[in-house]
Amino acid sequence: MANIAKKVSWSGRGDDRGERTPLLNGDEEVKYNRQVPDTLDYDNSENQLFLEEERRMSHMGFRCLEIRRWVICGLIGFLTGLIACMIDIAVEKLAGYKYFAVKLNIEKYTELGGLSISLILWAVLNSAFVMFGAIAVAFVEPIAAGSGIPQIKCFLNGVKIPRVVRLKTLVIKVFGVICSVAGGLAVGKEGPMIHSGAVVAAGVSQGRSTSLKKDFKIFEYFRRDTEKRDFVSAGAAAGVSAAFGAPVGGVLFSLEEGASFWNQMLTWRIFFASMVSTFTLNFFLSIYHGKPGELSSPGLINFGRFDSDSVQYNLYEIPLFIIMGALGEGNVTLSLYIHRPCLQVMEAMLVAAVTATVSFAMIYFSNDCQPLGQDNTEEYPLQLFCADGEYNSMATAFFNTPERSVRSLFHNPPGTYNPVTLGVFTLAYFFLAVWTYGLTVSAGVFIPSLLIGAAWGRLFGILLSFIASNTFELILNYQFKRNRIWADPGKYALIGAAAQLGGIVRMTLSLTVILVEATGNVTYGFPIMLVLMTAKIVGDYFIEGLYDIHIKLQSVPFLHSDAPPTSHWLTAREVMSSPVTCFNRVEKVGRIVDVLSNTSTIHNGFPVVAHTSENDEPGKICGLILRSQLIVLLKHKVFVERASSRLSQRKLQLKDFRDAYPRFPPIQSIHVSQDERECMMDLTEFMNPTPYTVPQETSLPRVFKLFRALGLRHLVVVDNENRVVGLVTRKDLARYHVGKDGLEELHLAQT
Amino acid sequence: MANIAKKVSWSGRGDDRGERTPLLNGDEEVKYNRQVPDTLDYDNSENQLFLEEERRMSHMGFRCLEIRRWVICGLIGFLTGLIACMIDIAVEKLAGYKYFAVKLNIEKYTELGGLSISLILWAVLNSAFVMFGAIAVAFVEPIAAGSGIPQIKCFLNGVKIPRVVRLKTLVIKVFGVICSVAGGLAVGKEGPMIHSGAVVAAGVSQGRSTSLKKDFKIFEYFRRDTEKRDFVSAGAAAGVSAAFGAPVGGVLFSLEEGASFWNQMLTWRIFFASMVSTFTLNFFLSIYHGKPGELSSPGLINFGRFDSDSVQYNLYEIPLFIIMGALGEGNVTLSLYIHRPCLQVMEAMLVAAVTATVSFAMIYFSNDCQPLGQDNTEEYPLQLFCADGEYNSMATAFFNTPERSVRSLFHNPPGTYNPVTLGVFTLAYFFLAVWTYGLTVSAGVFIPSLLIGAAWGRLFGILLSFIASNTFELILNYQFKRNRIWADPGKYALIGAAAQLGGIVRMTLSLTVILVEATGNVTYGFPIMLVLMTAKIVGDYFIEGLYDIHIKLQSVPFLHSDAPPTSHWLTAREVMSSPVTCFNRVEKVGRIVDVLSNTSTIHNGFPVVAHTSENDEPGKICGLILRSQLIVLLKHKVFVERASSRLSQRKLQLKDFRDAYPRFPPIQSIHVSQDERECMMDLTEFMNPTPYTVPQETSLPRVFKLFRALGLRHLVVVDNENRVVGLVTRKDLARYHVGKDGLEELHLAQT
Repeated sequence: MANIAKKVSWSGRGDDRGERTPLLNGDEEVKYNRQVPDTLDYDNSENQLFLEEERRMSHMGFRCLEIRRWVICGLIGFLTGLIACMIDIAVEKLAGYKYFAVKLNIEKYTELGGLSISLILWAVLNSAFVMFGAIAVAFVEPIAAGSGIPQIKCFLNGVKIPRVVRLKTLVIKVFGVICSVAGGLAVGKEGPMIHSGAVVAAGVSQGRSTSLKKDFKIFEYFRRDTEKRDFVSAGAAAGVSAAFGAPVGGVLFSLEEGASFWNQMLTWRIFFASMVSTFTLNFFLSIYHGKPGELSSPGLINFGRFDSDSVQYNLYEIPLFIIMGALGEGNVTLSLYIHRPCLQVMEAMLVAAVTATVSFAMIYFSNDCQPLGQDNTEEYPLQLFCADGEYNSMATAFFNTPERSVRSLFHNPPGTYNPVTLGVFTLAYFFLAVWTYGLTVSAGVFIPSLLIGAAWGRLFGILLSFIASNTFELILNYQFKRNRIWADPGKYALIGAAAQLGGIVRMTLSLTVILVEATGNVTYGFPIMLVLMTAKIVGDYFIEGLYDIHIKLQSVPFLHSDAPPTSHWLTAREVMSSPVTCFNRVEKVGRIVDVLSNTSTIHNGFPVVAHTSENDEPGKICGLILRSQLIVLLKHKVFVERASSRLSQRKLQLKDFRDAYPRFPPIQSIHVSQDERECMMDLTEFMNPTPYTVPQETSLPRVFKLFRALGLRHLVVVDNENRVVGLVTRKDLARYHVGKDGLEELHLAQT
Repeated sequence: MANIAKKVSWSGRGDDRGERTPLLNGDEEVKYNRQVPDTLDYDNSENQLFLEEERRMSHMGFRCLEIRRWVICGLIGFLTGLIACMIDIAVEKLAGYKYFAVKLNIEKYTELGGLSISLILWAVLNSAFVMFGAIAVAFVEPIAAGSGIPQIKCFLNGVKIPRVVRLKTLVIKVFGVICSVAGGLAVGKEGPMIHSGAVVAAGVSQGRSTSLKKDFKIFEYFRRDTEKRDFVSAGAAAGVSAAFGAPVGGVLFSLEEGASFWNQMLTWRIFFASMVSTFTLNFFLSIYHGKPGELSSPGLINFGRFDSDSVQYNLYEIPLFIIMGALGEGNVTLSLYIHRPCLQVMEAMLVAAVTATVSFAMIYFSNDCQPLGQDNTEEYPLQLFCADGEYNSMATAFFNTPERSVRSLFHNPPGTYNPVTLGVFTLAYFFLAVWTYGLTVSAGVFIPSLLIGAAWGRLFGILLSFIASNTFELILNYQFKRNRIWADPGKYALIGAAAQLGGIVRMTLSLTVILVEATGNVTYGFPIMLVLMTAKIVGDYFIEGLYDIHIKLQSVPFLHSDAPPTSHWLTAREVMSSPVTCFNRVEKVGRIVDVLSNTSTIHNGFPVVAHTSENDEPGKICGLILRSQLIVLLKHKVFVERASSRLSQRKLQLKDFRDAYPRFPPIQSIHVSQDERECMMDLTEFMNPTPYTVPQETSLPRVFKLFRALGLRHLVVVDNENRVVGLVTRKDLARYHVGKDGLEELHLAQT
C-alpha cells in the first residue's frame, strides 16, 4: 500500500556532498569533494607481490586459510546472534517498564477520570527514549539512521558508502534501535540487524578496528575488498537469520541483493554464518526466558506457530490472495529535508509524542471489549472502560510492541478484533509509519509493513467471511460449506502482511523463504510466493521499491544485474572516459604526486603504459595501478634512486598495503620534498600486469556483463594495437538505465 | 552410508567412445571420435548480424521477449508438473495391481502352505515390469539410464552430452521410470524428474522437436546456448519442485549445480517455473485423489505432516544428530561393465527377481506382528502368520512402494518396528540398492537413500531411547525426564534419511531446503542443516559425491566454481593450446574446408586475424568464429565471388544460423566443388569482433574466473601486440585439479 521515501542524505549532513555537474561523455572535468562515495574493487590486483605470496603458499596454507574463513563466519554468526539477543532483551526490558508504568497509571486514572495525565506520561516516556536514540544518531553517526539495508545493498554491489561498516556505526545503531523501538515508534528492530551483521562481519574479518585503533594482527590475508565483501555478505545473511529466524532466507537475501558470482564454497560459508547466528540467538534467548535447551526463539520476530489444521487453503482462495498481492502496493513519497541535527532530534521526539497521542486517542474512543480468555497471551491487556473480565482489543493492538501486535493479528481467534477497529488502526498506523520512516533514528521498515499488512489483511478476511456467509453461501452452497476455512482471518492477516511487505521492499525469492521460515510452516509457501510476485509486478509498474528509490536518490553508481536491454547501440568507445591519465612503467615521482593531487580529476585507477610519447599517441597497456597503491608507494618512498639504500632496508611487502587498507591516507598528508620529486618510481612490481581489457567496438551489454560478473572497478579500453584509449568505470555504466521511453542517461555523482 | 558408483558409459554403448591418449601441454594432435562430448557456448557471439538484430529491436520488443520468457517458464512448469502427475498415477496403478494380485495369492497360500507359488508370481511380475523398462532403455536410448542428474549437472556446467535433452530421451525416461518403480526395484522416481524437467525445458524453449521433425516457428530468438541453458535451469528446478514439492529447493538446486552468474530476473523466472510445476502436480493429483481444490500433494514424495509437537528437539540432541550426519557417509564402489544391451536387460530382470525373493524371504522368516490399528494407513497390511487383527510390520516395510515405506518409518508410532527387523531391513535394502544402482534402467537414488537412512535412523532412535531409559536416566534423571522426546524414533528416522542422502549426493543448501519443504515444517531446518554439513565434510574427506564420481568417470571437462587454490603458479601461457589455427578476415574456402575436415585436430573456435603472414609470425586478433558458423556459411555458399549474384538472393540472416541450431551438419555432408575451393569467404560480418582476450602472463585463477563467470568456450590468449598466441578451452582448465599432494593434471576426453 505504501512506498515511503524521504530524502535523507546518507552522509547525514547535507554539506558532506560535493558539487555535482552533469556529466558529459568523454569529458569529465568535474570538481568534486573528497566525501563522495568511493567504489570497491572486487577484482584482485594480481601484481608480482601478490603472486609471489600466493606461490609461496603451500597446499596446506590454503587449507588453513579456508579453515580461517569458516572460523570467521562462525564468529560473525555468533556475534550477530549475540547482538540480536542483546537488542531483544534490552527492548523487552525497557518497553516492559514503560508499559507497566503506563498501565498502572491508566488503571489508576480510568476510575479517577484524569486520563490526560496518563497520556502525558506515555508521551513523555516515548519522547525521552526516542530523544536519546535520535541524539546519538544525529550528532554522533548519521549513517546509522534508518535500517541500513540500502547502504548494505550498495556495499555488496560495489559502492563504498563512507563509515558504513565501522564499529562506531554499529554501537550507535544498536543503541538507536533499542531507543526507538522502546520509544514506541512505528518501527522494527529487524532491518537494522542486517546492517549490524554486516558491520560485525567487516570488523571481525579484518581482525582490527580503526574506531578502537586496535589491530589484532590476525586475518591479515583478508584485508582486501574481495574477501571483505564475501564476509559482509555472510554478515548480512546472519543478520537476516537472527532477525527472522530464517537462515536460508538470509543466504538468499545476500545472494539476491549482493553477490553476482555464485560460488558454492562461499554460499556454504554464508549459510554457516546464518545458521550459527540464529542458533546463538535461540540459545541465549531460551536461557533468558528460563527454558534453556528448548530452542524456541529462532528469530527476533516470532510469528508464532501456525497450526497445520488452521492453515489449509483452498484453490478458490488463490485469486483472492493475488488480489491481496496487488493491493500491497502503492506509494507515498514524503520528502522532508531536515539537515540540522537539533531539528532532527526535535522531529523524532515530536513523532514519538504524536504516536503516543494517536494511540491513546484511539484507545480512548474505541470500545472494543473482548472477553479476557483463560489462555490469554496478551501481556498488557487493558481493561479501560470494559466490564470486568473483558479487555479492550484496540488497546491491545496499540499498547504493545509491534512484534506482539503482529502475532496477535495472526493468531487471535476469529472475532477478537472488530472491522472498524482494524480499519482505523490500519489508517492511523499507516500514516504514523510514513512519517516515522524518514526520521533520523535507527529503525527498520519490516515490522511496520507487516503490521499494517496484517491489519488490513485481517480486515479483508473478516469482510470476506462476512460476504461469504451472507451472500454466496445461498448460491454456491456446495463450495462454501467449509466455512471453517473462510472464517480464519489470521490466514488473511498473514497474506496481507506478505503483500504489504513485498510491495514495499520488492524482494520475492528471499522474502518468500524468510516468511515461510518465520511462520514455521511451508504450507503457505505457495500463496506467499504468488502474493509477493503479484506485489512486485504491480508495484514495479508504478514505482521502484523502497530501497531502490533510496539508492537512486543518492545518485550512487549502483549496477543492476543486467545492462539495459536496448543498450546494444552503445559501444565501449561511447561509454568510456577519455582521455585517460596513464603512467609510465617507470614514472617520475613529481608527475605522480601532481596527478594524485589534482582535485579537478580524481581518478582511482591508472593504466600503466609501456611508453607515453610526447605527442598524444596513446601508449601500449602493460598494467593497471590504483591510487591507493601509489599512495602506499609514495609513503614508503619506493624510488628507484633509493634502491641501493633500500637493499639494507626491507623490501616493500603486501603487508604494507594491507596495513594501510582500507583507509589509505590522502595524498596531501604525504610529504614529498623537491628533491624527491625528481626521483623515479618503478611501478612494475606493484601494478596489476594483467588487467581486463576490451576493444573499443565491444557493445555495452558485453562490457556490462564482464564488469558485473567480475566485480571490476576499472576496465581498460584498448585499440587493436593494445594502446589505451579509454577507461570504463562503474559510473560510466550505471548512468544508463531504462526509462519509460527507452534508454536514458542519468547524472550520477562522480566516483 | 554408501556411495555407489558403477561405471556405465553415458553414451550407453562402450564403442561410442573414441581413442584417448594423454594430453601433452601445447601439443595436442590427438585423434578422436565424433561422438565425444561437445561443449556449450554460454557467451553470445556478438557479430554484426546479432548486433543489427538487437539494434533493430525496440524497447517494446525486448519487453515482449521478456514476457515470452515468462510464458515459456510457465509452460515448462506446467508440462513438468503434468509429467510428474502422469508418472505418479501410472506407478500407483501398476504397483497397486501388482500388490493386490500378490496379496491375494499370499493370503490364499498362507493357509494352503504353497507360498513358493506366491514368490514366483511376485518375482515374475517384477521381472516383467523391469524387462520392459530395461529393453526401452538399453535398446532405444541408453542415455535415459539412471537419474540423469549428473548429465544435467554437466549440461548446466557447459558440457554437452549427446542426446541428453531430446524428446526421445524423455519418452524412454518416463516409460523406464514407471516400469522400474512398478517393478519393485530399490529405486525412486524423483531423480529422473529433474532430467525430465530439463528435457521439457529444452524442447519448449526451442519451439521445435528434432525427434518429431516438427518446427513450430516460435521462440526462434531463444535458439542459442545461452538462452537454452537458462531455460534448462528452470526445467531442472521445476523437476525438483515437482518431485519433492519444494519450489525454493528447486531454485537452489539449479543455482547450486548450474548457474555461475546470478541474475535476478533469471532466478525469478526459475522460481516461477518451479512454482507452477508443483502447483500443477498438486492440482491434478488432488483431482485424481478425488479431493479437487484441496492441494495436499505438492510433490511426488510426500513425507507426511510432521506434527509440531512431535518434532521438538532439544539442545543435547544436536551432538547426536551430528554423529548421525557423520554416519551417513562411506562408499561402496561397484564396478560392473556390461555393454551388451541383451545382458543389461537380463541383469535388470535378475535384480528384480532377486529383490522380490529377498523381500519374500524376509517377510517369511520375520515374525514381527503388530496390532492392526483403527486408523491404519498401510495400504497392503499383510497378515501372514500373525494372529487375526494383527499384521506383519516387516512385510509392510517391504511390501510397498518405497515412498510409502519412508513415510511409515517417519510417522508410525514408537514400537511399530522392532530393532532386529530394522537392522536386517537396512542391510538387505542397502545391498539391493547398491546392486540396483548400476542397472540400465531409468531410476533415481533419492528414495532408496532416504529409505535406508530412515531405517537406520529409526533403529538409532530406538536404541537411544532404550539406552536413555535404562542407563542414563538413573544418573542424569533431571535431563532425561522428557522421555517423550527421546521416545520418538520418527524424528531420528528423518535425521537418518537426511544424513544418508546428504552423504550420497553431497548437496547442502538445496537439500536442506528440499527436505524442509518436503516435511512441511521448518522446525527441523537447523538439525537437518547440521547433519547435511557433517555428512558433506566427513564424506568429502573420504571420497567425492556420487554425482561427482560419475562425472569424473566420464572424463568430461567439468569446471568447478573455483580454480584449484595452488594454481597461481600457472599462467595462460602454460595452460593454453598452441599453435592455434587462425583464419584471415577474408579466407580461401579451400583452406576453411581443409581445416574443418581435418580429423586429427578438431577445433570448434578459430581466432580471425588481420593477416597471417607466411612465416610463423602470429597475426593480430580481430575476431573469433565458430565451427558451426563456418559450416552454415559454407552450406549457404557465402563467397565473395558470389556477392554480385547474392544481391539478387537474400542476405544471410541470423535466422539461418538459428535454423541450423543445435545440430549443425558435419563438414563431410557439405559439398564444395573444386572451383568453389578457390573462392574467398569474408568472415567480417559473421565473426564475433570482440572476443574476450587475456595476456599470456595472466594467472590460471584469473583465467579461470573469467572463463567460468562468463561461461566461455574459447578464450584467446594474446601477446602485448594483440597477436594470437594461444587459445584456452574448457578442457585446458578442467584438467587441473587438487589431489592429495597438491595440483594434479588430469587426462580428459578431447572436446
